[in-house]
Amino acid sequence: MAVSHESVPDFSDLRAVYVNCSLKYEPRTSHTMRLVDRSAGIMRDLGVEVDIIHALEHEIPAGMERDLTEHGRPRDDWPGLHERIMAADALVIATPIWLGVPASVTSLVIERLYAYSGSTNDRDQYLYYGKSAGCIVTGNEDGVKASSRQVLYALQHIGYTIPPQADCGWIGEIGPGASYGDTAPGSDVPVGYDSEFTNRNTTFMTWNVLHVARMLKGLGGFPVPGNQVSSWRDHSNAEQQQPGPVADG
Amino acid sequence: MAVSHESVPDFSDLRAVYVNCSLKYEPRTSHTMRLVDRSAGIMRDLGVEVDIIHALEHEIPAGMERDLTEHGRPRDDWPGLHERIMAADALVIATPIWLGVPASVTSLVIERLYAYSGSTNDRDQYLYYGKSAGCIVTGNEDGVKASSRQVLYALQHIGYTIPPQADCGWIGEIGPGASYGDTAPGSDVPVGYDSEFTNRNTTFMTWNVLHVARMLKGLGGFPVPGNQVSSWRDHSNAEQQQPGPVADG
Amino acid sequence: MAVSHESVPDFSDLRAVYVNCSLKYEPRTSHTMRLVDRSAGIMRDLGVEVDIIHALEHEIPAGMERDLTEHGRPRDDWPGLHERIMAADALVIATPIWLGVPASVTSLVIERLYAYSGSTNDRDQYLYYGKSAGCIVTGNEDGVKASSRQVLYALQHIGYTIPPQADCGWIGEIGPGASYGDTAPGSDVPVGYDSEFTNRNTTFMTWNVLHVARMLKGLGGFPVPGNQVSSWRDHSNAEQQQPGPVADG
Amino acid sequence: MAVSHESVPDFSDLRAVYVNCSLKYEPRTSHTMRLVDRSAGIMRDLGVEVDIIHALEHEIPAGMERDLTEHGRPRDDWPGLHERIMAADALVIATPIWLGVPASVTSLVIERLYAYSGSTNDRDQYLYYGKSAGCIVTGNEDGVKASSRQVLYALQHIGYTIPPQADCGWIGEIGPGASYGDTAPGSDVPVGYDSEFTNRNTTFMTWNVLHVARMLKGLGGFPVPGNQVSSWRDHSNAEQQQPGPVADG
Repeated sequence: MAVSHESVPDFSDLRAVYVNCSLKYEPRTSHTMRLVDRSAGIMRDLGVEVDIIHALEHEIPAGMERDLTEHGRPRDDWPGLHERIMAADALVIATPIWLGVPASVTSLVIERLYAYSGSTNDRDQYLYYGKSAGCIVTGNEDGVKASSRQVLYALQHIGYTIPPQADCGWIGEIGPGASYGDTAPGSDVPVGYDSEFTNRNTTFMTWNVLHVARMLKGLGGFPVPGNQVSSWRDHSNAEQQQPGPVADG
Repeated sequence: MAVSHESVPDFSDLRAVYVNCSLKYEPRTSHTMRLVDRSAGIMRDLGVEVDIIHALEHEIPAGMERDLTEHGRPRDDWPGLHERIMAADALVIATPIWLGVPASVTSLVIERLYAYSGSTNDRDQYLYYGKSAGCIVTGNEDGVKASSRQVLYALQHIGYTIPPQADCGWIGEIGPGASYGDTAPGSDVPVGYDSEFTNRNTTFMTWNVLHVARMLKGLGGFPVPGNQVSSWRDHSNAEQQQPGPVADG
Repeated sequence: MAVSHESVPDFSDLRAVYVNCSLKYEPRTSHTMRLVDRSAGIMRDLGVEVDIIHALEHEIPAGMERDLTEHGRPRDDWPGLHERIMAADALVIATPIWLGVPASVTSLVIERLYAYSGSTNDRDQYLYYGKSAGCIVTGNEDGVKASSRQVLYALQHIGYTIPPQADCGWIGEIGPGASYGDTAPGSDVPVGYDSEFTNRNTTFMTWNVLHVARMLKGLGGFPVPGNQVSSWRDHSNAEQQQPGPVADG
Repeated sequence: MAVSHESVPDFSDLRAVYVNCSLKYEPRTSHTMRLVDRSAGIMRDLGVEVDIIHALEHEIPAGMERDLTEHGRPRDDWPGLHERIMAADALVIATPIWLGVPASVTSLVIERLYAYSGSTNDRDQYLYYGKSAGCIVTGNEDGVKASSRQVLYALQHIGYTIPPQADCGWIGEIGPGASYGDTAPGSDVPVGYDSEFTNRNTTFMTWNVLHVARMLKGLGGFPVPGNQVSSWRDHSNAEQQQPGPVADG
């Protein structure tokens, strides 16, 4: 083999968190959890500490607030979940597809992450700088790319670094059908488990999220300057630059 | 100020390419080019070699091929443009918004990039691994995020690394109105030039694209293993992992 | 004026339902509700019976089921809300924008509508055939079109007819800022209330939703045949048609 | 059969135009054209006059103008194509999927349609009022809904009426694979031709586009008032409506 085992970076000080945004309340009934298992298995093989949050096992009310108990809701598990997400060097959001877009629970989790958008880290960067992110999508017919697009865009927008090929997933042929890991009548191979495309992309996503987390952790975070909330004008910046004139066209 | 000038990394060996996908044929009539100018100005201040491609100055036929002269078109400037893109460590795609989505020229440029998706680099990774990417969007009313989502998703999918806050742009209030850099009657400040939000995000995007390009170039490319086209099964991978059973739900 | 008052159709037997998917729990704190008020006011002027549902005043658990109390949830207000939606000839979904996409509550409401996708009406068409739909979007900076796109696509996909220009909304200039109906310091005009663009498009959306509802109600529903779940093969259909050969290209 | 042949409306005075936005220059090498053939076959069976435009057989330069020969381009076939589109009562846009979104040619065609957005019909409504629209999407792995969403949103936004279930298409299982109508080794059924889901939805789309075109043509266009560009203030409108107060939340 061309690449020797020696070349595998040491990932053993890294911590990753998966948030499964399935619409199923029980983790074991979620098809999306199957693909989370595969990705998380790779991370564990590499010595990474893995934390898996199944969103619907928790009480997460809607609202653009950090703690909705301070805004009239009787219970809000989000602050504790957010601590687990902040404790990790990498975040992978897993979502099923409904009507071609991510599940509502995925939007809910992203909104709750976004509610901290005014906060900064100890480098005066936005809070999620210095971490990497990826996503996992499953459905039975269509929408892996549309769902990934929505998830990855949101995560980079709030400060995560997105590695190459950070999206992976599985869907079947168009129309209703089996979900990932279902066993079709007369077959003993769970549907999708032997998809080379899904397995390869899940492998790429998992490793790439770790490679970027490794780089960033090695640097003590995402490098400054030029991205600090209170001092971006201290160095070359857009305000100083003079665009050329606009001609009539 | 907390961050000394000394902390600025040396970016002087980096090369960046901007592709402006405006629907205007003359660069000086493109409003989007104004914001490209501001971002490129920062890069030049930092010693980066900047190359700007104005797509509609070139003949770029549609088609999922590398060179359409081999498929019946009389002329195709794409192969030369692609070389310029490959010569750069970072790519910034700039697009105007039409009907809430990126211009058709943007989709065309992305398709032509994607036509090389079967090629690999000297590490057996997909061709665009080891480079960083960002985007710039302008319009007069709505769609910066939708357009960024489409551009950044495509670029990570083909192998670029996406830094935090890699999207920036300007739009005015809803409805028809002035475009970026237009001078409204009775005013001498070009529209949008004093938008703190646009200037800050353009600054962040520009620096972050360079920081990631710096990191990757320092490492000689995006790290292996786990992302190699012909040998991803040599290390821990999704195929080997056993998902838990799916319960009825 | 060219169009006489006499030409206004009689809409007085129509019923419309608005679902406001704001992330605010109290209707009076929702900025989106302001624009719902304006659209609903037109409908009431025209004699339409208007029902407004503020989603977060109700308990609507996530899940692709019609009644989640049958699947372990302690409470589910959805079945009653669904009856109100089915009692109306027209549906308008109102949503705020978060990170450029509709609020999670909007996705939740759409999922719960979609959970009836296997049901048919008395013409053997999917359940929502024979009704018209539109949408209202507000935010403070970007995403009216992206949000409308997601809402209107879902509604046509499940059976609603979408009139021309069925989307309307308001956003301010890029960056954080006032929301619709906020009063800026030193001004007594609530922000956005005087936007001709928003007012015109809200007017168009509202009337067009009624015009289509009027047409469909006049016909006793959406016309057959060609769209019946159990008998689409009884008339000319895609299965019978012979596509031309595919040539190598 | 439950629905008698008598109940089929007379569609024989209708005219429909399909625009195939394939990236292939020759119509017979376009897989998407296969599904166009099936839909168009239904229309012809019903007596509808069908016109099919294969976009890449024509010279259509990019640009937000009606006729680019007036803006420096040597040739522009669009004005003649636009006449054919205006001569039809219904428009179906067919697109392949690339990277999860419609082909660049599709965006180009939509932009050129949109360039007439300031024009009105003889009822003082926007130009495309009074016509119905649908779409057809094919690809080999993912993105029918995302592509339909973009096409149908644009068409309603410029004035087309969108019937229920106006989107249809075919994709295979995730990953590279056969395209619609390809014949796999060892099989004599072209891929996708026997997909019940695709055939049913294509049938629904086709008939529903005709039903709406029939309704609108019977009424002499889309009804007024409330949607006229110069006189929308003559009747109840959003500007007159007083929203309730916004409470602090």
